[in-house]
Amino acid sequence: MKSFVRSRDLPWRRCFSHSATRRDIKSISELPDRILPSYQETRQNDLLCLQWPSPPRNVLLTKKNNTPGITESLIEYAQHIHSTYPSMNMILEPHAAEEVHSQLPFPIFTTNDTAHDRAPTLLSHKTDLISTLGGDGTILRASALFAHAPTVPPILSFGMGTLGFLGEWKFREYKRAFREVYMSGASDAYASIDCTSPYLSSGTALATEISPPTSYASIRGKSMGKTRNARILLRNRLRVGVFSPSGSRINGPSTSSSPNPGDTYALNEVIVHRGSSPHLKILEIYVGGRLLTEAVADGMIISSPTGSTAYSLSSGGSIVHPLVSSLLLTPICPRSLSFRPLVLPANTPITLRLSEKNRGREVEVSIDGVRISKGVGVGMEVRVLGEEIRDRRTGEWCGGVPSIVRGVVGTEEKEEDHWVGGLNALLKFNYPFGEEV
Amino acid sequence: MKSFVRSRDLPWRRCFSHSATRRDIKSISELPDRILPSYQETRQNDLLCLQWPSPPRNVLLTKKNNTPGITESLIEYAQHIHSTYPSMNMILEPHAAEEVHSQLPFPIFTTNDTAHDRAPTLLSHKTDLISTLGGDGTILRASALFAHAPTVPPILSFGMGTLGFLGEWKFREYKRAFREVYMSGASDAYASIDCTSPYLSSGTALATEISPPTSYASIRGKSMGKTRNARILLRNRLRVGVFSPSGSRINGPSTSSSPNPGDTYALNEVIVHRGSSPHLKILEIYVGGRLLTEAVADGMIISSPTGSTAYSLSSGGSIVHPLVSSLLLTPICPRSLSFRPLVLPANTPITLRLSEKNRGREVEVSIDGVRISKGVGVGMEVRVLGEEIRDRRTGEWCGGVPSIVRGVVGTEEKEEDHWVGGLNALLKFNYPFGEEV
Amino acid sequence: MKSFVRSRDLPWRRCFSHSATRRDIKSISELPDRILPSYQETRQNDLLCLQWPSPPRNVLLTKKNNTPGITESLIEYAQHIHSTYPSMNMILEPHAAEEVHSQLPFPIFTTNDTAHDRAPTLLSHKTDLISTLGGDGTILRASALFAHAPTVPPILSFGMGTLGFLGEWKFREYKRAFREVYMSGASDAYASIDCTSPYLSSGTALATEISPPTSYASIRGKSMGKTRNARILLRNRLRVGVFSPSGSRINGPSTSSSPNPGDTYALNEVIVHRGSSPHLKILEIYVGGRLLTEAVADGMIISSPTGSTAYSLSSGGSIVHPLVSSLLLTPICPRSLSFRPLVLPANTPITLRLSEKNRGREVEVSIDGVRISKGVGVGMEVRVLGEEIRDRRTGEWCGGVPSIVRGVVGTEEKEEDHWVGGLNALLKFNYPFGEEV
Amino acid sequence: MKSFVRSRDLPWRRCFSHSATRRDIKSISELPDRILPSYQETRQNDLLCLQWPSPPRNVLLTKKNNTPGITESLIEYAQHIHSTYPSMNMILEPHAAEEVHSQLPFPIFTTNDTAHDRAPTLLSHKTDLISTLGGDGTILRASALFAHAPTVPPILSFGMGTLGFLGEWKFREYKRAFREVYMSGASDAYASIDCTSPYLSSGTALATEISPPTSYASIRGKSMGKTRNARILLRNRLRVGVFSPSGSRINGPSTSSSPNPGDTYALNEVIVHRGSSPHLKILEIYVGGRLLTEAVADGMIISSPTGSTAYSLSSGGSIVHPLVSSLLLTPICPRSLSFRPLVLPANTPITLRLSEKNRGREVEVSIDGVRISKGVGVGMEVRVLGEEIRDRRTGEWCGGVPSIVRGVVGTEEKEEDHWVGGLNALLKFNYPFGEEV
Repeated sequence: MKSFVRSRDLPWRRCFSHSATRRDIKSISELPDRILPSYQETRQNDLLCLQWPSPPRNVLLTKKNNTPGITESLIEYAQHIHSTYPSMNMILEPHAAEEVHSQLPFPIFTTNDTAHDRAPTLLSHKTDLISTLGGDGTILRASALFAHAPTVPPILSFGMGTLGFLGEWKFREYKRAFREVYMSGASDAYASIDCTSPYLSSGTALATEISPPTSYASIRGKSMGKTRNARILLRNRLRVGVFSPSGSRINGPSTSSSPNPGDTYALNEVIVHRGSSPHLKILEIYVGGRLLTEAVADGMIISSPTGSTAYSLSSGGSIVHPLVSSLLLTPICPRSLSFRPLVLPANTPITLRLSEKNRGREVEVSIDGVRISKGVGVGMEVRVLGEEIRDRRTGEWCGGVPSIVRGVVGTEEKEEDHWVGGLNALLKFNYPFGEEV
Repeated sequence: MKSFVRSRDLPWRRCFSHSATRRDIKSISELPDRILPSYQETRQNDLLCLQWPSPPRNVLLTKKNNTPGITESLIEYAQHIHSTYPSMNMILEPHAAEEVHSQLPFPIFTTNDTAHDRAPTLLSHKTDLISTLGGDGTILRASALFAHAPTVPPILSFGMGTLGFLGEWKFREYKRAFREVYMSGASDAYASIDCTSPYLSSGTALATEISPPTSYASIRGKSMGKTRNARILLRNRLRVGVFSPSGSRINGPSTSSSPNPGDTYALNEVIVHRGSSPHLKILEIYVGGRLLTEAVADGMIISSPTGSTAYSLSSGGSIVHPLVSSLLLTPICPRSLSFRPLVLPANTPITLRLSEKNRGREVEVSIDGVRISKGVGVGMEVRVLGEEIRDRRTGEWCGGVPSIVRGVVGTEEKEEDHWVGGLNALLKFNYPFGEEV
Repeated sequence: MKSFVRSRDLPWRRCFSHSATRRDIKSISELPDRILPSYQETRQNDLLCLQWPSPPRNVLLTKKNNTPGITESLIEYAQHIHSTYPSMNMILEPHAAEEVHSQLPFPIFTTNDTAHDRAPTLLSHKTDLISTLGGDGTILRASALFAHAPTVPPILSFGMGTLGFLGEWKFREYKRAFREVYMSGASDAYASIDCTSPYLSSGTALATEISPPTSYASIRGKSMGKTRNARILLRNRLRVGVFSPSGSRINGPSTSSSPNPGDTYALNEVIVHRGSSPHLKILEIYVGGRLLTEAVADGMIISSPTGSTAYSLSSGGSIVHPLVSSLLLTPICPRSLSFRPLVLPANTPITLRLSEKNRGREVEVSIDGVRISKGVGVGMEVRVLGEEIRDRRTGEWCGGVPSIVRGVVGTEEKEEDHWVGGLNALLKFNYPFGEEV
Repeated sequence: MKSFVRSRDLPWRRCFSHSATRRDIKSISELPDRILPSYQETRQNDLLCLQWPSPPRNVLLTKKNNTPGITESLIEYAQHIHSTYPSMNMILEPHAAEEVHSQLPFPIFTTNDTAHDRAPTLLSHKTDLISTLGGDGTILRASALFAHAPTVPPILSFGMGTLGFLGEWKFREYKRAFREVYMSGASDAYASIDCTSPYLSSGTALATEISPPTSYASIRGKSMGKTRNARILLRNRLRVGVFSPSGSRINGPSTSSSPNPGDTYALNEVIVHRGSSPHLKILEIYVGGRLLTEAVADGMIISSPTGSTAYSLSSGGSIVHPLVSSLLLTPICPRSLSFRPLVLPANTPITLRLSEKNRGREVEVSIDGVRISKGVGVGMEVRVLGEEIRDRRTGEWCGGVPSIVRGVVGTEEKEEDHWVGGLNALLKFNYPFGEEV
């Protein structure tokens, strides 16, 4: 998976545009700071309810690369957002900004004038909302931009024709979908106030100068009502630390400028694999601090429930619903008949340690498909813990990847449609064989 | 698995003894009412801490049947309890009471003078604590005695030589183990008071006349200290309802005398199976109220995490740690290459419905190994939900099967030993094959 | 699976018709004796070439029961055979004969005037060719009629809309298919002779009086040429003997009138299963006369390669091509993590022995879905050996179930189409999941 | 796995010794040509009987590297052979020859004075018998020395403490084992002739000058009798061709000096794997010339039955007995729930083709653990066919890897002990879990 981190090498960096035209690419640092929503429990089920304290202002749009049709959809979508919600600012990844800015009659924002390693920090400080156009890979890539952020903005994802487990919405629904997310949590009282705020008439060029939060009172039209709040599936991530034999951290932001030099968050999984080494790897597996077993295998997967339909599934793991708070430990081609995959509590620390018994030096560690390139040798440890998505003290929901789930109007009870639907559509789950009985 | 329920047909019912000797078998109805402990969260881990408001008085002792050595151990154990904790009353299953009462110099209690269907209710009203001598089967059988009770007393289980996943303690530890459980939660202040209570000197014959709770002040010797509280693993059960096509409940207590004519609780699993029918069964599976799939299979297992190492494991399911709040859906010999086992949230209702497409009439439904014998036909539904083990309103832990986990003195951090140990010892988990690398 | 053996209990036996009309049901014993074809190896591949010494005369037609559309097709098919190949005699199972004879303007043959247990023997002595209309179940049932015969007539099977692994032909091809089989092996010289044989003009009523073999010279029209010989896939069967603890045979023909009181042949598998017993069964497994292991499981399957896509597949077995001379040993829900299915040489004897350790009495043994009903207890043995399909001395192909494989005209190399096609169409083999790469 | 092929880079090449001392290392080219044994069928079972036309003269001894204890055993073994069978010449791999020659009071032979790529050819022309000291890896390495030879000499393997599927004999049996192999097939008549051959008394220095075959008449002592013939398990190999998109062969001997520039033979398996590429590979799989499916997976294994207990087993394949003439197709982490492993006839050609849809360039192909290093890209094909081990015309057994199977004296029927024993000892096959029933 191509990641943002590698983007500094791309040629468009050289042609970064500081022109004064309306088709500007501006720096993300000019944007007002991020607005953090809250997530409320609902009576009906385990989905949460998105509640903005004030309307979101900065939306990060990401798209699948090298797919012209999706680029066109992105432009259409951006134009709709701009015209309907003029106070919204749009952030694009540098290469996408370069690709589309000339076709948009308003400035867009990106991170490419900043020092490379500050981009993730800035994104984390400025992004209220993420919207992705593409498949699961695009969502994973967007999520990876926040791999060092303890809180990820809500993600509104459009499937764009490819089937995926994570994508929720059809692109043709984008107007309704965006409105539902934008308005989520606005009280009717505020929404009924006439939109007379003077700066709204002053045009989009001024939008980014406004630091006081926009009010829902300024929104043309009505709120969508309490029942139309956006529903959120908080997907637990893994907190992954990779440590050298000497105990120093290998993964994590490369420089000290990072506000959070700690664990990397993974939406799907962390994988240890022999890679191109012909030798099976010997891994000591610690669960809750004690040795579970010494595995001899091609590799080992520690997966979130979200990742249970990715590599873990190929490797024989069970399918785990994203709301089961757990970690999956799934071996890859183990030299054993009896290493059945395990499902462990999310709050149990798991450590994989590359045993001194290994002859070959090489081993590959990758987090959500991004390989850690250096310092991985005998004695190395991968330490994993499920992300806490609820504050133990306050009880507030605060972590995970908040995925905006598609509901059907007026049919609240249908909202878990997606997972069950995904099993059937994506996995061809339980396709029967043989003659009819 | 032979169950208590069937015991009314056994011959010893005819020789029930009402003699006045000390070797009496008395009626459980004479006992004081059950004392409900509370379960406190601990800092270190997910195990809970057992806290008695006052010392337990009534202990149900169950044993593996037809094993003379275990019967002898039971007698030794009962004598120890009687001599060290004279206020304890011992309850035995009718056949065990009959078998051993003549060898015990004090009265024991049982249910066999009561109407058969009141036995479970009385057990539930009187039992403070359960202690089992035998393997997993004995624990399952003890648990099944409370299959209609929303709260199961804490279970202290001794392995008796057979390996098991549920059994915790070695029999040679019984003195320490029982003391640890008995004292759990007693404050030092009370325990230091001298034991001058007059009724303690009056002998065991009076014990059952005492209705005011015993005080820890009456216990000879010291408390074991705060750190020696018994640790509890609350095992989620399944709540299982079996309904006829007309919607009437098939399982549940057979008569209206039951205080709780509702669901049956299962510690391991509920199984729908073709039994001796040669035809595969067609089952509609509903998850969260919506059709997941129509399975054609020998059968289907809905298992608790505790049951993940039982039938579900034989049938290809993953191993799920008992603290992962979940339900497992594992097919038995499905006519599909793509019915991978599922792990679902414990609070998601699952329904298995015997489709009208089935030709054969027969299907077998069994809950923790006890078969439901009547009324199971086309249109029948098995409805399952994970048991809530925590009160949503008060946050108190209140359900499940409270298993007393064996700790090692002074090494608190070793207390999750059992599950990891069980994987290795019982499953020969991850036994490697082939030549050494 | 309903079997012929049970048919004596059906009500139509009472209305057996001995009327003299042309719509007669006649006794199979009136037919000329069976003509045994030979099977020649071909250059191209492992399929064999069917060669009749003289045209076949007696065809057994079987159909799926209780399916009116298939009954109509049977009538159409029978009328075609009668009008085009007037010397052919048609044999039907008793219930089918009763069902359709009034709609056919010529006599048909069946077994129901014979002593019940002679039916299989007569069928084996009289049937040149089998043709089935239905799915795999119908083929299995037809094959089971020859479960005690060392040689099964070639089977021409029509799928009738249901998908199956064993069925080959589409019903709309019946004219070409039957001609291809009928003519298979006829030399062009003979076929070019004009059909002036006088008895052909004398009508069908005389057909059964003809004992000298029909000659291909009598066939109207040309042979289909050497390249159009019917291609045969010889499917190995299992030879199954079931023995009581005392060593006496349990399965096999019930009376001494059988010419072959020995093993039962199975096309798919023999299964030992706990049935409705709640207890796992303990089975000793002997391979080549030595103890392999003691299995504790719901049951055990010994399957032919043909059966590898039936129950064995549901139970986790690999898919084995029918031309791999082998036996599959596949456990059903074993209480082990490490009982991987085995593929053994077809000529290795396998014995399953019900261990004395079993507590429950009940066990079910079934051969190709037909349950053996008596005498199956502790100490029982199921002994299995792959059928020899080639005479060791002469090298002639002589056993197995000769399945007529569908080829495409002029494309000889396409003839193994069916198995590969079946994997894809029937098993939805290798259906990918997740997003497109 | 370190292979002979790479040995030219080892330092000892520089110190090749041409000294005239008795501790010489001589060139393998000085040895008399290979003697080809025949293999006779036996009545009892599928093992064959080794028959030398005249006593073997040249034995290749290979050993596990870097294991001092095994080096010592090699020296002991070589000395025994030299003193008991003075006409035997011993061939060692170059590095082993260098390591031990100074400790042996007689010349040994090796290949390191020859052009590197002639070594395999010379080995194939000169080696009558192979004997290995080590585990399965050592046998695989020895077998790989004959990866381009259509006939492999018989292999007598000693396990040396490590468990393996292929190793047969315990080292302490080496005297009996070697004698059994050496004498195998000698008639009693010849063996009873007095050993008066003059050249035998002339000492070992002359041995290599003798070109006429040694006679069994020259052997001191008696033959071991007809019943003591060495028993041979002929293990089918795979014939593997790797072809570039343009159709040119990639594997095979690197230079034209090879007498057999064709397929490489593999004892275990050929593997296509993504290696260090993060992308799943898209492979078109052709069976018998027709497309079976397009697999998206980490890789694919085509294995012999012998290899079924190696990588294929880790990847979910069944265990296939080495006498089942077949190929296994086992996917590695497929992106599909329904790619069940396949067992195909050994004579069915299988082709894996790296689809043009692959984005990544890298793919790894390895044959018995030896990686093919160049030219492997999109469009590449791996073509596999099972080795014919019996001449179709003459019926003679002529290919495969002839493994000398350990029998127990006087118990002929016990000779298949090894495979069943291996399942239990090596795989911990069918280790039961849970409580005793």
